This record gives sequence, structure tokens and C-alpha cells, in this order.
Amino acid sequence: MRAIAVDAMGSDTAPLPEVEGAIQAAQAGHAEVLLVGPQDLLHRELTKRGAKDLRIEVVHASEAVTMEDEAAKAFRRKRDSSIRVAARLVRDGKADGLISAGNTGAVMTTAKILLGTLEGVDRPALAQVFPSSQNGKASVLLDVGANVDCKPLHMQQFAVMGEIYYRVIFGADKPRVGLLSNGSESHKGNEVTREALGRLNELSLNFIGNVEGRDLFNGRVDVIVADGFIGNVALKISEGIVDTFSVLLKEALSSTLSSKLGYLLSRRAFNRLKKRLDYSEYGGAPLLGVKGVCIICHGGSNANAIKNAIRVAAEFSEGRVNEKIERELALASLSKN
Amino acid sequence: MRAIAVDAMGSDTAPLPEVEGAIQAAQAGHAEVLLVGPQDLLHRELTKRGAKDLRIEVVHASEAVTMEDEAAKAFRRKRDSSIRVAARLVRDGKADGLISAGNTGAVMTTAKILLGTLEGVDRPALAQVFPSSQNGKASVLLDVGANVDCKPLHMQQFAVMGEIYYRVIFGADKPRVGLLSNGSESHKGNEVTREALGRLNELSLNFIGNVEGRDLFNGRVDVIVADGFIGNVALKISEGIVDTFSVLLKEALSSTLSSKLGYLLSRRAFNRLKKRLDYSEYGGAPLLGVKGVCIICHGGSNANAIKNAIRVAAEFSEGRVNEKIERELALASLSKN
Repeated sequence: MRAIAVDAMGSDTAPLPEVEGAIQAAQAGHAEVLLVGPQDLLHRELTKRGAKDLRIEVVHASEAVTMEDEAAKAFRRKRDSSIRVAARLVRDGKADGLISAGNTGAVMTTAKILLGTLEGVDRPALAQVFPSSQNGKASVLLDVGANVDCKPLHMQQFAVMGEIYYRVIFGADKPRVGLLSNGSESHKGNEVTREALGRLNELSLNFIGNVEGRDLFNGRVDVIVADGFIGNVALKISEGIVDTFSVLLKEALSSTLSSKLGYLLSRRAFNRLKKRLDYSEYGGAPLLGVKGVCIICHGGSNANAIKNAIRVAAEFSEGRVNEKIERELALASLSKN
Repeated sequence: MRAIAVDAMGSDTAPLPEVEGAIQAAQAGHAEVLLVGPQDLLHRELTKRGAKDLRIEVVHASEAVTMEDEAAKAFRRKRDSSIRVAARLVRDGKADGLISAGNTGAVMTTAKILLGTLEGVDRPALAQVFPSSQNGKASVLLDVGANVDCKPLHMQQFAVMGEIYYRVIFGADKPRVGLLSNGSESHKGNEVTREALGRLNELSLNFIGNVEGRDLFNGRVDVIVADGFIGNVALKISEGIVDTFSVLLKEALSSTLSSKLGYLLSRRAFNRLKKRLDYSEYGGAPLLGVKGVCIICHGGSNANAIKNAIRVAAEFSEGRVNEKIERELALASLSKN
């Protein structure tokens, strides 16, 4: 069974979702959990929940990185932060992977420095799973924010990494890979994207060319490659519009007596819908290209999201994603110019 | 009363939405309409609808640009296209503005060449209105696709143009202007965005700095400036997710008997919601920075969208948006380096 280190002090309501998610993951047998944070606090929370027979070990860390901390400063100054202790466990081979719902920049910086990058990878990339309107299908967008000002070579590496991740985690045989652009025709794109298009065409992947923003959700493509700046804007737009839609829907449905009654009758359908749109089912965003496994969860993660992230981290390790990335990047022998 | 030229052959179901939208706009007294397309067809459709006493004049154009036509080629080869004839009416002072639901690239190319750009504008920008979760509020994003690889100077001009447009069309006094980035802190952004941030700070606008994708919809900012590549990706992502949400909602609500009944009871609320999210209420995307007025509507526009675009085109002209743009750009005396 894989061992996964969980930063217990990351989420907005830490350590509750982390403690409960760890318990659920251990109960389900997803992994052995190393719960990292203030030991007294964590032991107390675990005892309260009667978790003493589960495969959960507390590893002490005296500091926590906040959302306000700058990534590089936090790394230098908070040497005993829960993020850093968790990453050290992975580096030292005591854990196979780590998950954190904390400050994304700080987690990425810490993982890149302490774990190092895989052979053949210039820049690790953060990958986000999006639900699609086709039942059970999902797409993966990368990079969603590990890098701004990406070069075409980096985007070529993102394609290789994202494709392998998708194959392993979703059990797909030949996932379709696309390049996020402002139109599907091959002459579309800005300078970087047009050059990246040529480079992605050289790879032996199921590459379908340029795709548009709408293709994130319609099931036309499985893996979508983008520069980290654009990917991050894309991610936050979709989060924003889902929030807006929920607010408007609630308003619309509570405005009259008959619509309130209608809501009560259709509540179960709504809850199913919400679950389909709930990113937490997919267990966070993996930072692809670092040694070991690093999965970053949303700050608002609940216990279910943490549990799923632990499961995905274990699958990532069992599926030997990193070995495959190194091997396939070596085979592709990408031109560095 | 303003005269607005309507390309009758643009939308996916042309000329019906155009003919009906023209009739509604003329009935409401929004403008005098010059309906451009095959005269026999248009006269027949108008007569069928008993529109003979309205201020609608048919102007003949023998050709139509299709969605498959390449913009530059269509401009050169289809010299009697409805888009080109409509633009000629504006150039020759016979109309104050034009609207088209046709091939966006072809409309932009035609407008830029035939109408020319305003003094002080290097690149016209397409502006899209987004509904916000705050009742009655809306935000404007530009550029959504007129230009890829924008320079910081262009984005500075976009800010000036977008701010004036927002003031005139939404009657706002000091609209808040933001720059679309991957975080709200001032050190965030890619190379171009970081330089643009400095330039936007120099303008005498109510500039609130970097904003994120989610701010498009939450009412925090009124005018959002972006490079045309990013703006276009942003636009298509939000269109995609609204479509997806609608599909999922429909599925969720038709899955059980009680949810079907619930849907019937809450149908009016849903329709109100759909109307709030319906871009057509805002009347299309203006191409800011060209002489005259050019408003581009979605290919799937209905009569209501066309009517609203005609109204907005007239308001644009009455509000002297272009005069204000030229004056304020001259006052700002932007550095060209």
C-alpha cells in the first residue's frame, strides 16, 4: 500500500477536512496516511473521531504557510512548515506522494526545490480536471498556473505529461490531445501557440490540433495544452461562472412560491447536477514533472476532496506516471531550440 | 433619428432574425433601418410581415459571406457582399452604423479597411458584455478576438476605449477598469501583462489593477482589458460552460417524475434565469476604434438580439463614443515605445 503525506494545515478550514479526509481514505484502504501538522492538535482531532486503529501516522510540523505568504519567502523562512515537512517525507522516501490544499505557489515552489524535476522536464505543470457534459467524461487542462511565459518546447513537454496522466488516471487508451487556441483552424493562434502547434504535431500522440475554450467541457478532447497564464485565466473563469450560475439559479428558484415548491421537488436532481460539476470528485490538481507525487487541492476542499486526492496520489504512484514520463520524453527526444 | 445598416444575410438562420429584429427596432423607434441583402427576398419577407409603413429601407446586395469564407479573401472577392455594402453605407455617411451577425473575421476586416481606424487608435478591439451575478450589472471584456499578440500600448488604448463605451452605454460615472491576469497582486502576470499594468496605472481612469477570471462575473470590475488571444479564449470558455450547464441541468431535471414536475413548477424562474444569462439582451459586441459604428452579433442571434444591437448601435452614435475616444486618447498622449 502506498504512503501519502497530507499537509494537514492547508485548507481554509484546516485541519478538519484533512483529518476527516485522511480517515475516509484510510478506511477505504486507498493509502497509508502521514498526517503532517501540530502533533497535539492532530492527535486530539483523530482521537475525537475514534481513528486510533487506522493506518494514519501523525508527523509533527510546527509552522504553517498562510495564503498571504509569498511562495519563495515562505520556503526560506518557514523551514518547519507542514508543506515543507510533507515534501521532505517524499524526498526521503518515507512517503510516495504528498497532497496539500494550501497556498498553491508555496506548494509548487517547495515541491520543485525539494523534490526536483524529472529527467527531460524543463518546467513542471499543474493539471486541472474539468467535468464534461458527456456523462462520466472529463478533460484535463495543463498548465493552469505553474508557469507564465511558456515556450513551445515547454508546451510540448506538457502534452507528453498530460497524455500519460490521463491514460493512467482515467484508463483511456489513446486520449485525444488538443492545443488551446482562439479557433480550431491551424492558422489560428498567437505566436507561441502557432509554433507550439507545429511541435505538438511532431509527437506520436493522438493530437487533434487546435481546440477552443468551449471544448474544455464538450467531450471533444481529453487533454488540453496551454501556456500557464492562459490556463490559469481559463480555470478561474470557469470557477467564476459556475459560482455565478449557482447564485443566479438559487435566486431564480426562490423568487416565487411555485418555483420554491418546484425546487423542493427537483432537489435531488439538483444535487446530482452539483455533484457532476464538483471538481472535488476528481481529487485536486497534480503538479506533473516533479519527482514523487504532488497534488494540490482547492483551498475550499472538503473531506471528500481530500480523500479523493489521497486516492489519486496513490494511483499516480502505482501507475508509475513518472517513469512513463521520463521514458516517453527520452524517446521523443524533443529539440531544445 | 439614427440610421443603422443591418447585414440581413449574416445569422445562422438569415434573413429571418434580421428582418424581424429590424421590424421590432423600427416599431420601437430605436433607429431607421437600412436592411442590406437580396432585395426581392427582403421585400417579400417584409411584406409578409406587413412592415410597409415602418422606417425600413432595403438596400440591395447580391452576395453573402459564409462562415467558411476566409476573411481577407471574402473581402477581395465578394465585392457586393451584404457586409461590404453595409460598411459602404456607413463610410459614405448614409448610415451611422452597421450591425452583422455574420462571419466575425470578415466583418472586422471589412470594417477596418472600409471605415478606417480612429485617430490615435493602432488596433480596433472587439468588446463583449458579460452578465454578472449582481442584478442588472454587467461587465465588458476587450479585446475578445480582434487581435492576437497585443502590445502593452494596444492594451492601454483598449482601456481608454472600453471605459468610454461602458460610460456611454451603461450610464456609469466612473467605471472600474481592471487588467485580466493570473492573480490580483501586482507582481502577477506574464511579461506583456506586467508591462501593461504599469501603462494602465498611468491613465487617469478608475483603474483597480489586476483582476482574475472570476471577476468577469462577480461585479467587482466593470471593464476588463486583455490581449485578444486571451480574451477570445475567455469568451469561448464562458460560452462553453453555460451550454454545458444548460445540458446538465436539463438532464438532471428530466431524470425523475418528481423532478419533471418540479421543473414545470419552476419553469418561469428558469426562463428568467436564462434571460439574465442571455448575451442577446446586450446587443452584440462592438468593434471599438473604427470610424462609424460596427456591432457584431452572435451567429445564433434571434430577432431580440438583432433589435437590441440596432438600439445599442444608435446609442453608440448618439453618445458620441468615437469623438470621446479620439479626444481622450489625444489628452492621454500615450508613449509609443
